[in-house]
Amino acid sequence: SSNASQKKKPQTYKERASTCTNPLVQQLYKIMNLKKSNLALSVDLQNSQQILQTVDKLGPHLCIVKTHVDIIEDFSPQFTTSLRDLAAKHNFLIFEDRKFGDIGKTVKSQYEGGIYKISSWADIVNAHPVPGDGVIKGLKEAATGTNKGCLLVAEMSSAGSLAKSDYTKGAIKMAEDHKDFVIGFICQSRLIDDYNFVHMTPGVKLSEGGDSLGQQYKTPEEAILKRGADVIIVGSGILATDDPVQAAIQYKEAGYKAYEESLKN
Amino acid sequence: SSNASQKKKPQTYKERASTCTNPLVQQLYKIMNLKKSNLALSVDLQNSQQILQTVDKLGPHLCIVKTHVDIIEDFSPQFTTSLRDLAAKHNFLIFEDRKFGDIGKTVKSQYEGGIYKISSWADIVNAHPVPGDGVIKGLKEAATGTNKGCLLVAEMSSAGSLAKSDYTKGAIKMAEDHKDFVIGFICQSRLIDDYNFVHMTPGVKLSEGGDSLGQQYKTPEEAILKRGADVIIVGSGILATDDPVQAAIQYKEAGYKAYEESLKN
Repeated sequence: SSNASQKKKPQTYKERASTCTNPLVQQLYKIMNLKKSNLALSVDLQNSQQILQTVDKLGPHLCIVKTHVDIIEDFSPQFTTSLRDLAAKHNFLIFEDRKFGDIGKTVKSQYEGGIYKISSWADIVNAHPVPGDGVIKGLKEAATGTNKGCLLVAEMSSAGSLAKSDYTKGAIKMAEDHKDFVIGFICQSRLIDDYNFVHMTPGVKLSEGGDSLGQQYKTPEEAILKRGADVIIVGSGILATDDPVQAAIQYKEAGYKAYEESLKN
Repeated sequence: SSNASQKKKPQTYKERASTCTNPLVQQLYKIMNLKKSNLALSVDLQNSQQILQTVDKLGPHLCIVKTHVDIIEDFSPQFTTSLRDLAAKHNFLIFEDRKFGDIGKTVKSQYEGGIYKISSWADIVNAHPVPGDGVIKGLKEAATGTNKGCLLVAEMSSAGSLAKSDYTKGAIKMAEDHKDFVIGFICQSRLIDDYNFVHMTPGVKLSEGGDSLGQQYKTPEEAILKRGADVIIVGSGILATDDPVQAAIQYKEAGYKAYEESLKN
């Protein structure tokens, strides 16, 4: 994008932690600096114990654990307590990938209420900007006084996505209008030259390709160096291997190396 | 829209039930004809018993009951069993307003799995078209061999919605490409002159106005006669009154009168 070509000198995670204003964003960059990791694990498993065991093993290598709480077959409030314990133990943030997409009044209830009470345990959630900025206002009302943040889904990795051109511009506008709560984007390219907005890119895999339902993969290098991602989100690339710990280390190192390379630009 | 101005002679619900090809759409028009109702109730309550009692009272006047299962504080599988019993007793369809918005693999798990097992009890769900048609393919895989359908959220009632122009056109294209599973739209205007696609309009209230989080209301007459809705979705207009049964009858009659008026066009 034109923003990317005019960008300022790249900052290290440490520098970003001290220049960014949102406390949650600061915390994330501190973790990324400390753990030398820009790796978010998408832990799309359906059993609580399996998720907790996986996160306990891979936790040392992750800056973020991304959940889909609504695919877990044996969910209980104890699960989220245990997950928060692991977040404290291994120093990562929890990102519930709920993709809220309703009017403000509804998403407020979905975020704080129901069985899942997402606002009580997730540091980060995300939302589709399609309803207009009421979706952000609704979530924000449920998060008042807490250290929570929201990512806007500005671009998607799936084939034929409608999140492009004017839609993506609308997402950027909403983010800028709600800097106190919107901490970044789910995206496929650099959208704003401002480290207060963390750019997270899903669909990352060491080998490119796709799945039968439209997912399209890119490598850590492509995500970070070509597309300007701050955080890479990896799921099956780590979990669908014989040695997930080794795979996580491999992605962490590939991601960190690409980040170091990006500082030279 | 240009489609609306070129539209064919309006069909009665009875005629639509016999000309439409999707069995779920046929069933809906049969219910609408039999009960003289195009009224969907948005039952945004947070207590199971309260929802079931409300639905049992208002059921005779509704063609659809629309739920947000993830705002219910005391959800249990028994709740959905009881809701299905009420659907059989009062002859309405159940529409879980989940607004799926993820890649195909994920929405498939969200639809059939987790605590809610939505595909086991909801006749209708909806999805944002933003991920591309993988979202439809994923849901469809979970619904194979059952009489289920999906609405695409093509337009929204909230202020500043990004669901417009090319986005809405993209939704229409996806619907036409997946006629076996997409049974219509959540919309604010008539999008296709084809009764196989049921147009459902939320944000309907006898008095116009809005809420503090961006919702914008319109009357049943405006939704049906000006905007071409087949089904009106009413929530607080019925539930936030002293006599919800009386209010439901009022909306049912206003909606049916507008439908009869629309047949004269």
